[in-house]
Amino acid sequence: MTNFAELNTKKMSSTYTSNLRIEKAATSKLKDVNFENIAFGKTFTDHMFMCDFVNGEWQQPQIMPYQPMTMQPSARVFHYGQAVFEGMKAYKDDDGKVFLFRPEENFKRINKSSARLAMPEFPKDYFFEGLTTLLNLDKDWIKPGVGNSLYIRPFAIAIDPAIAAAPGESYRFMIICAPAKAYYKGTVKVLIAEQFSRSANGGVGYAKAAGNYAAQFYPTNLAQQKGYQQVIWTDADTHTFLEEAGTMNVFFRINDTLITAPTSDRILDGVTRKSLIQLAEDNNIKCEVRPIKVNEIVEASKNGSLKEIFGAGTAAVISPIEGFEYQDTYYELPEIGAHSYSSMLKERMLNIQHNLAEDKHHWRYEIK
Amino acid sequence: MTNFAELNTKKMSSTYTSNLRIEKAATSKLKDVNFENIAFGKTFTDHMFMCDFVNGEWQQPQIMPYQPMTMQPSARVFHYGQAVFEGMKAYKDDDGKVFLFRPEENFKRINKSSARLAMPEFPKDYFFEGLTTLLNLDKDWIKPGVGNSLYIRPFAIAIDPAIAAAPGESYRFMIICAPAKAYYKGTVKVLIAEQFSRSANGGVGYAKAAGNYAAQFYPTNLAQQKGYQQVIWTDADTHTFLEEAGTMNVFFRINDTLITAPTSDRILDGVTRKSLIQLAEDNNIKCEVRPIKVNEIVEASKNGSLKEIFGAGTAAVISPIEGFEYQDTYYELPEIGAHSYSSMLKERMLNIQHNLAEDKHHWRYEIK
Repeated sequence: MTNFAELNTKKMSSTYTSNLRIEKAATSKLKDVNFENIAFGKTFTDHMFMCDFVNGEWQQPQIMPYQPMTMQPSARVFHYGQAVFEGMKAYKDDDGKVFLFRPEENFKRINKSSARLAMPEFPKDYFFEGLTTLLNLDKDWIKPGVGNSLYIRPFAIAIDPAIAAAPGESYRFMIICAPAKAYYKGTVKVLIAEQFSRSANGGVGYAKAAGNYAAQFYPTNLAQQKGYQQVIWTDADTHTFLEEAGTMNVFFRINDTLITAPTSDRILDGVTRKSLIQLAEDNNIKCEVRPIKVNEIVEASKNGSLKEIFGAGTAAVISPIEGFEYQDTYYELPEIGAHSYSSMLKERMLNIQHNLAEDKHHWRYEIK
Repeated sequence: MTNFAELNTKKMSSTYTSNLRIEKAATSKLKDVNFENIAFGKTFTDHMFMCDFVNGEWQQPQIMPYQPMTMQPSARVFHYGQAVFEGMKAYKDDDGKVFLFRPEENFKRINKSSARLAMPEFPKDYFFEGLTTLLNLDKDWIKPGVGNSLYIRPFAIAIDPAIAAAPGESYRFMIICAPAKAYYKGTVKVLIAEQFSRSANGGVGYAKAAGNYAAQFYPTNLAQQKGYQQVIWTDADTHTFLEEAGTMNVFFRINDTLITAPTSDRILDGVTRKSLIQLAEDNNIKCEVRPIKVNEIVEASKNGSLKEIFGAGTAAVISPIEGFEYQDTYYELPEIGAHSYSSMLKERMLNIQHNLAEDKHHWRYEIK
């Protein structure tokens, strides 16, 4: 069996010599895109990044025109779900400068996800050189202005043609990019999970593993049939503790205190989540990171101390939640509009991301 | 959103008119295959079955030469793990007749898996006509004799090119086939899970969902580094109840009684498992289906009443386990050789599968 830990140590410590191969697209598809009316995740930029892992090492990284690829029907990703991903965004300011937001966090996390799925970690230099070169090639796809961004999707899949139920030996790491407007429109209603679960103690809930998402679709469909856009997952043992929303971490505001669940092997360590905790502190908002019982939120809603609930994630930054259902009862959040922490924190985050505000924590990463 | 339940009802109740399109391979690869030395799951037969779901319905099913396929990098299976599969085998008797074993069970289960992953169910007529035609075309790949078989892998994946985290609208159902010898060689040692978990209450453990397998590879790698081939998973809440082995259900023999865990939303409803429960009854072996505590097995090992542990699954039929580790202690099973339930039950199963014994429960399904 391949010892990935050893391979990666070797790879990461070796002297890095750039050998990125670049094949430019003959023409750009940019002129055909209506940026005012763009569905999320269906339109991709002119180029993509690809690097294969074969015979125990990562091969020459490549940037090439965005295109379909050939896969064997027996490729392990189709059968055993060895697939991990990240979600990042690039932003452009009015001077045309392009920024990422804490990309190091995404890089570290995709390798953490890969390790949990027995996939080889990707070298840092390959990642950043590939990403930077790709964004420079496709920078005209990034529109300036708050609300506009380029969604970046790094992902890795097992590609070897063998259906034995064991880790593969060949992998592909890719980065594709899709121009994006705001991901969610308006507020959302959520259903608190009482029967279905997202992840187990000792499982892969903390990883951005592909299979975590497919597992949520059916319970989310059921919630949508009841009029809820999202599910807030609870612990699988007792369904009494609030965890995360599957594509977002969740914050609760009781009186003037924000509360969010601690990360664990069931809960994703969200980049937006940890940035909001810091921003709350910067703005003298008390933020408690601790387990939250569903009953605490229900009681707070009943006595009027529950002021806000919002989701936090790369795609939407912050999604305000207007109400939740639990045990067949619907609890509506008060309308606090401009005074909400969610709108204040979202504005501060967007201003930092778009180079419109001071970046005291050095979260912005300029693409040069 | 597509209402698959409604679509499938419509499809299943419609009058079925065969429109299977067949493109035969120009030449066979069969002559190049050394059947005496064949690695599991790396060599595939001359043909494959494929049927796409587009615009709310299953399109014309096709059989074509086994070949790679073109996928978009944004195909949902790569990002969100919408992928389910089955494992089946075809056997040939000395008269050249070809049999499946309880294929209806696999058909029902892949649709149960699909439903849990918000994927459309596949029509029964398409499945059986496709499978039968495929096996007739590739029947020379099935070698007679106990131990030889053709492993059959039906699977379905989400193929639409869109990276929004929601169920896809386009899917592909395929069947590929690989000639197989016995999957495991000899006995295996297992590690009982104390920290990692395979599935959560309310999760997808009962489904043959691709992501369930990737999640097991890393803990299994750790077990292999300690000298164990497989992990026996325990409940995620307490790690005190024995569940399944990830690719196999598990049976324990204490004195002359077999015990296996009940199926649940965490445990796969294995075809081999339920067939062995029936065979035990047919042979006057008491078989209890009930929760089993790890401590019960440890105590039984200490007092000498634990006679056997074995895994049960399509690939290996039965895998005898020679010992297990729990809480840093290794417990060795006694050598009972020819008197073991595992060898007796395995022989009876193989004889039924290979048309060498009476089939009183009508488990064999002849391919005509």
